[in-house]
Amino acid sequence: MTYCLALKVNRGLVFASDSRTNAGVDYVATYSKMRRYCWPGERVCVLMTSGSLATSQAVMNAINRDLNDPDAEFSLRHGKQLYEVAQYIGKLSQAEQTLHEKAMEKSNASAESNFILGGQIAGQAAEIFHIYPQGNFISASEDTPYLQIGETKYGKPILDRIIAKTTTLEDAARCAMVSLDSTIRSNISVGPPIELAMYQDDSLDEPFHHTYTLNSPMYKSMKKQWTDGLHRAFEQLPRFDWEKVKADEPAGE
Amino acid sequence: MTYCLALKVNRGLVFASDSRTNAGVDYVATYSKMRRYCWPGERVCVLMTSGSLATSQAVMNAINRDLNDPDAEFSLRHGKQLYEVAQYIGKLSQAEQTLHEKAMEKSNASAESNFILGGQIAGQAAEIFHIYPQGNFISASEDTPYLQIGETKYGKPILDRIIAKTTTLEDAARCAMVSLDSTIRSNISVGPPIELAMYQDDSLDEPFHHTYTLNSPMYKSMKKQWTDGLHRAFEQLPRFDWEKVKADEPAGE
Repeated sequence: MTYCLALKVNRGLVFASDSRTNAGVDYVATYSKMRRYCWPGERVCVLMTSGSLATSQAVMNAINRDLNDPDAEFSLRHGKQLYEVAQYIGKLSQAEQTLHEKAMEKSNASAESNFILGGQIAGQAAEIFHIYPQGNFISASEDTPYLQIGETKYGKPILDRIIAKTTTLEDAARCAMVSLDSTIRSNISVGPPIELAMYQDDSLDEPFHHTYTLNSPMYKSMKKQWTDGLHRAFEQLPRFDWEKVKADEPAGE
Repeated sequence: MTYCLALKVNRGLVFASDSRTNAGVDYVATYSKMRRYCWPGERVCVLMTSGSLATSQAVMNAINRDLNDPDAEFSLRHGKQLYEVAQYIGKLSQAEQTLHEKAMEKSNASAESNFILGGQIAGQAAEIFHIYPQGNFISASEDTPYLQIGETKYGKPILDRIIAKTTTLEDAARCAMVSLDSTIRSNISVGPPIELAMYQDDSLDEPFHHTYTLNSPMYKSMKKQWTDGLHRAFEQLPRFDWEKVKADEPAGE
């Protein structure tokens, strides 16, 4: 399984992904699920993927093939709007899946992959898209400014409680790390390291990017302070009526 | 959908359930998913259910039929150990599902139900069981002292961070309410009111029981304080390196 998350706030975009893949419980491996492409001043794309690793890798390979082919009909450098790039990735994904459709049906398996594409093209607004296995896609909304793929449920409550359009880029990044960490704690098929990318709107430059292992001081400190903070929040929850009565009883009487 | 949760801590048991059922998005209704049975001094059973409402209601009806039949082979009042009651409920559930098996297959639908059974029989330890649609069941473990059925993922991270065997009964109840509330916020198929039951070990008496609507002062206050506490915890998370540099720069220089 996998968990990838993209947030779109007023100041920019945040991307976060885990690094665990598994085919059954007896084949677990670590793969990066985030690719960054940048042509400074021109365009920036970040791509994350969940689902069939074979399909995901084939799409990445096709992207590189087209980038290196000056005669390619379309590539990550084409398109005036980011949604055209999303369409292109949807087509690559569909083409790859169609190739193995019959064999996959025979094995009763799925070659489906989901993608999150985010970034900015000069002169356009920064955007994020969730590209479905069927090749169609959606963007995030004003009210729910995030997109998730993979094992999405464990990490959703914290996003619903914290994230708004007005959240700062750094707070959005911290919230993404908490959302990933909650998922890692509750589901063994999602695992560290956590990759984090932050893109500042209109910078049209390499996003900040860092990989946090369990031993990274920032990740360790964040985990500890979040756990401590949650316990403090929990201790401050209201008492039930009969607990109040107990607490009001004078000692020794 | 549904979310039901049972916790087994050193001092007793906590049960919590939501009240929303839906058959598609255009038929949403409110049903209690928790039944309590108590014979003071003798035995206490709490039963919660998710899945097919038809199967769940049929099992509840069969339980009442057997309780009212002095010649019944088995009923909730029979069995010296609680696992025998779990076996009995598994059998009722299987019998009901078998009755409609062919018709359900034709409609490509499922009549499966999951149950959580908890309680205590005089002279035995208090226990909780998750009874699967197949009729078999598991109990909670020392390390993971809770069981969930229905829409379980959204509410799991808070349990994994807070709950241990040594948690007090009241804290376990508060944590159950937070777990339910997180699920209600993130998934529209789980909805209020929240039913809560608390059973103190060896009391062999009616569990404390309360239904919290969105307007209940305790639920309102808990929601607010939890949201506030989470925001405080979030604000105290460590800064990224470059944020520290910014904060350290003397003003006006």
